Amino acid sequence: MKIKSVVIKEPGQLVIDEHEVAQPLAGEVRVKVQLAGICGSDVHIYRGHNPFAKYPRVIGHEFFGVIDAVGEGVSADKLGKRVSVDPVISCGHCYPCQIGRPNVCKELTVLGVHRDGGFSESTCVPAGNAHEIADHITDEMAVMIEPFTIAANICEQLKPTSLDTALVYGAGPMGLTTIQALKNVYQVKQVIVADRIPERLAMAKACGADVLIDNTHQPLKDTLSAQGILPTLIIDAACHPSILDEATRLISPAGRIGIMGFSSEPCTITQQAITSKELTIFSSRLNSNKFPLVISWLNNQKINPDALITHKFSINEVETALAVFEKDQKNCCKVLLEISK
Amino acid sequence: MKIKSVVIKEPGQLVIDEHEVAQPLAGEVRVKVQLAGICGSDVHIYRGHNPFAKYPRVIGHEFFGVIDAVGEGVSADKLGKRVSVDPVISCGHCYPCQIGRPNVCKELTVLGVHRDGGFSESTCVPAGNAHEIADHITDEMAVMIEPFTIAANICEQLKPTSLDTALVYGAGPMGLTTIQALKNVYQVKQVIVADRIPERLAMAKACGADVLIDNTHQPLKDTLSAQGILPTLIIDAACHPSILDEATRLISPAGRIGIMGFSSEPCTITQQAITSKELTIFSSRLNSNKFPLVISWLNNQKINPDALITHKFSINEVETALAVFEKDQKNCCKVLLEISK
Repeated sequence: MKIKSVVIKEPGQLVIDEHEVAQPLAGEVRVKVQLAGICGSDVHIYRGHNPFAKYPRVIGHEFFGVIDAVGEGVSADKLGKRVSVDPVISCGHCYPCQIGRPNVCKELTVLGVHRDGGFSESTCVPAGNAHEIADHITDEMAVMIEPFTIAANICEQLKPTSLDTALVYGAGPMGLTTIQALKNVYQVKQVIVADRIPERLAMAKACGADVLIDNTHQPLKDTLSAQGILPTLIIDAACHPSILDEATRLISPAGRIGIMGFSSEPCTITQQAITSKELTIFSSRLNSNKFPLVISWLNNQKINPDALITHKFSINEVETALAVFEKDQKNCCKVLLEISK
Repeated sequence: MKIKSVVIKEPGQLVIDEHEVAQPLAGEVRVKVQLAGICGSDVHIYRGHNPFAKYPRVIGHEFFGVIDAVGEGVSADKLGKRVSVDPVISCGHCYPCQIGRPNVCKELTVLGVHRDGGFSESTCVPAGNAHEIADHITDEMAVMIEPFTIAANICEQLKPTSLDTALVYGAGPMGLTTIQALKNVYQVKQVIVADRIPERLAMAKACGADVLIDNTHQPLKDTLSAQGILPTLIIDAACHPSILDEATRLISPAGRIGIMGFSSEPCTITQQAITSKELTIFSSRLNSNKFPLVISWLNNQKINPDALITHKFSINEVETALAVFEKDQKNCCKVLLEISK
């Protein structure tokens, strides 16, 4: 049987490749992919800006589908199960794995980055990475689990509480999933969101943000102090290297800052700004076993993935889908690819 | 009754002042100070390099003595008790205080910095700041509690375990107390110490360090990789702003870094180095209620303060004592002042 996959042959060169379907190896399941989500890092691999990518590569690390074959040692009971796939594959025995941080395993393999991913009609993954989804969870909700694990991963480190006033930089997909988690899962006192695109701030409001700040013209510092807001927790979901320094100056003593950016540009801070307030800076990459947690959020209706989904395209329209995602920041948030029915 | 105090009148001007003894206010106890320790921050106040100090100031925030008067509302049972004094005074109701971080209270007052301290034959302090010391703890051990709270404060954030390989930058007083805590309290697997003074490395060995590295001539990176060492926990007790960037490059994925420096110089890092390994950066200032913990370490013989004490001077020799502390880094570690008998 022939299947289609979206392959980045080399930076800038995307093809829809037709090839024979693979058979799952021992310990693997084969997933007939139904829906996939586009993430900034897919675009970075396409453009050659992802430092971890190897080419050629089938991209896509947010995907949902149905198990249609199992490898040796995997129960046939899994056939037909609806699954959402954790893209993180780890060795299980190195120091990060030992302390429960497989997402920074010394031999880390990420589906769609280091190994072929989910923008494909069929893909094989380790059985343990395929998380079963209850029938009442829609396909659209299921494909959004991975983006919410990004929020879960940083929040589980920052440990937000009802005493926190949280400031989120950036109302893109990472910011919006984080806002929903902060408000509806961790029930922080107040969520403030800063972005420069009014349409994105409107999405942040729909996701539960209490205070919206357009920091295009006025420094954030001035707006916060005019409103008497002193954040105790700041998450940089905009990922510009200049934000960390500003965050150390805006935050309360004993505050926590979470960063998710991968910029290799110099980022200049002062230790006095950090130590005098005894700040803690957490960083977050991918997710460490957070699929079960986010699935519990979905089952308990704590989060609303639909608020983020703005576009759907078929796999054949992948180039248009990527272009919309890259260019239309006003109207576009999460773009889904319909891979197979 | 007249008493003597060491007063910094203004940066660079030290006098031994004689003045009438004060009476404790409501809620206070008066401590007849017996021993005090010299810390880098005393020298910084003397030299005008402490951004928090106000002048004139009786310096000294490491001190031990006997309660000889109590204010209104304080039990007379406290008279005659041997006490070690926590220099941190907090409001008790702001956000940092609410979450157990009085050391970065919004209205923080530090004895010897914002308010007169312990280089004085007598000083009044809030009763709750005076921690009673058991008879079997010597005066010298008791005066060293505050320096060990610095180690306790950063370690309680970093949560060292027996899985950790710890690298400590700097074998001065902060580094040496930290080494003792890491080895004997938290029982980490291995402690590596980097310093540029062989005599200090010898003190680090006496404090329990497993691997001593003189990084004067060879980059630390080369020495560590030659010995196959990958630290999972790094503490910067040397406090140079360039160390943080190096630490992010030397450390294991999922590692934790602790900083204690107050430099206002620019410190340049990259977020890629931090986020790709999902590092956490903790900072530590003073101590948050760590006197009881360190007193328990002393009572259980987990730490050996004597290994750090190299010099003793009388209060009248304070200028010599400060000069030795500042200049003789080879032979000098902790300098004590004998204040009264």
